[in-house]
Formats: sequence, C-alpha cells, structure tokens
Amino acid sequence: MIVADVAFYPIGKGVSASEAIKKAIEALRGAGVRCYPNSMATVMEAESLEQIFAAVARAEKALVDMGYPRVETILRVDDRRDLENSVERKLRALGEE
Amino acid sequence: MIVADVAFYPIGKGVSASEAIKKAIEALRGAGVRCYPNSMATVMEAESLEQIFAAVARAEKALVDMGYPRVETILRVDDRRDLENSVERKLRALGEE
Amino acid sequence: MIVADVAFYPIGKGVSASEAIKKAIEALRGAGVRCYPNSMATVMEAESLEQIFAAVARAEKALVDMGYPRVETILRVDDRRDLENSVERKLRALGEE
Amino acid sequence: MIVADVAFYPIGKGVSASEAIKKAIEALRGAGVRCYPNSMATVMEAESLEQIFAAVARAEKALVDMGYPRVETILRVDDRRDLENSVERKLRALGEE
Repeated sequence: MIVADVAFYPIGKGVSASEAIKKAIEALRGAGVRCYPNSMATVMEAESLEQIFAAVARAEKALVDMGYPRVETILRVDDRRDLENSVERKLRALGEE
Repeated sequence: MIVADVAFYPIGKGVSASEAIKKAIEALRGAGVRCYPNSMATVMEAESLEQIFAAVARAEKALVDMGYPRVETILRVDDRRDLENSVERKLRALGEE
Repeated sequence: MIVADVAFYPIGKGVSASEAIKKAIEALRGAGVRCYPNSMATVMEAESLEQIFAAVARAEKALVDMGYPRVETILRVDDRRDLENSVERKLRALGEE
Repeated sequence: MIVADVAFYPIGKGVSASEAIKKAIEALRGAGVRCYPNSMATVMEAESLEQIFAAVARAEKALVDMGYPRVETILRVDDRRDLENSVERKLRALGEE
C-alpha cells in the first residue's frame, strides 16, 4: 500500500483556492483513492504508485479545466516495502489515531 | 495567523521513524505551536512565521540529539494577508471540518 | 511543456544517498525526460504530466530494486497553460541563465 | 553546513512570478546566504539552520511587501552531521559539478 499527500496551488484566478481544492478532492475520490483532507494537503492511500499518479493527473486536469492558467502540484509519496503501510498504521504508530 | 505543515525524514538509524516523529511533535508542542499530526506531516498553526521557525528548529534539534546523522525537513507555509487564516477556517471552506 | 522537480529520499541503507540518486537520474533520463540535477533535487522538462509520472515511477522502482526498504519521493510540477513553459524560459525570466 | 532549497508561490497578482522571485532571491542573498537559483527553486547554503530561516523570513516578507495577499513557501533542509555538507560536495558525489 502507498501512503502519499498532494497539495495543489491553483494560480491566476483570485486568492482563495477552496472551491478548486474541493473539485480536486472530488476528482481524487472519483479515481478510487482513499482521501483524508487536512488544511495543507490531502493525504491519500492506494494500492500502487500508478493509482496515485492517475488520481493526481485527474485532479490536476480538473483544475486546468476550471480555467486556471497555472497549477502547481506538490506530491509526496511514502513507499515502504518492509511492512504493510497504511494511513491507520502510521497514525497508530504516532499514537494519534 | 500562519498555517503550515512540517515533515521530517530522519535518516541513518533504521527504517521506522515513528519514535522520532513523536519526539519532534512533542518539541513542536513544547514551543507553543498548535499541532495536528496526520500520516504524512504535522499541520501547525501559530501567530507568526518566526514562531513556526523556532518550533521547527527545536523539533529538528530533538532529532539530531537522538543521534540521527542526517535529518531532512520539509516545511510548507501558507501565509494569507487578505483574511484571518486558521486550520479551522481552511477545513470549513473545504467542508471537511 | 511541463517543468517539474523530483527529490528522492531512500531510507534504510546507510546515510549517503548519492549512488542511489545517480541511479534514479539515470532512470529518469532513460525515460526520455530532460534532467537538470542540482544539490537538492532534479529539475525535469517533458511534454506531458504523464511522461513526468512515468519517468518518476521508473526512477522510484530503480531505488526499490536497489533494496531500499523505504523510499520517500517529493515531486513538484509547474503546469502553465498561458504560455510555452520551459526550463530555459524560467531561468531567462529570472536573469539566471 | 546546511544545504537547503526554497520555492515561493506568490498568489493573487497575476500568473507570472519571475519579478517576485527575483526580489526574493535578492533578499536571500542580502541575508548572506549563498544562492543557486534553478527553474523550480533556489538552492541555499549557510552555516546554520537559523541563518536559513532568517533569510527565508526576509525573502517571504519581501513578497508580502510587494502586495501579494497570499504567499506559499516550501523550504527543504538537508542537515548532515556525519560529514561537512556543501552544495559542491553533493554535486561532486553525483558527478554533476
């Protein structure tokens, strides 16, 4: 399992991004990725890196289709092969479930 | 108000980072910053950028003091001057409180 | 054109990452992406976001295949639709060619 | 020695950021930090984490003073205690001087 987070900075149509970020989260969820939005990014959990990339591409396109002339995307991926990684496991290990 | 997130990658002492990240979160909170850990980073809320930097420096030092020979820190800051920014306001704007 | 940068943090096999990063850059170039390594990341230039993702997936796999039990990846993408973006154009605009 | 990179995303005054980024780099250099701009970020080299933070705070303020209502900052820090880190050493280790 892959745990990751993505932040989008849509630029060129005002200061607030919340409507755009809502659309992006919708697109991520529509791609079958489990999403856990927070106030700086959206944590994602998926079976493979390819599934994460496909979801992020879909969300980025949703922002471009909203007419943003520039979209910055910051994607961070935590890929562990020594154990079965998950959002829940990581939070439990921090005592922060 | 400043909203930010910080992720630490302590390197050189095994694969799991949860004990180190727990120590880092403790240090952030000890510096008076409101912390909202998630599975990829810790969201922070503070009155100023200087307070965020002071807390992150304290947390990074805690990891170095644990004996990690290399510490990677990724800090993202959202500084809005057009309205009173906060973790709660951002989540409410996403409909994700 | 898409301009992006990627940083890999291979964890679990010592402190130095340079041999691993060399392998990752080789894999990125092998995927047909123009690469401009610096001391914190590798800037990339490609025709599409999908080409960037395919190259990053290839490079990340190269690190996993080297036996790293954990690989952290940070990918940042600058997607401009208002003009023809490029590494050279961005550096020229900064006066830093 | 600390090696780091910083990327600023000034939001709310158009699409192009190059004039703002030029001002930010000027402020970083004015704070005594060695700067190596690339097309996605500016690599920095300084004696301490505090010097990096002071320079980034100065650059971020320069963008706010330009009238940007929102400034996103991404700072990445590579802090090695097992050897004398530097931009040159890292590039040499990659064979990319």
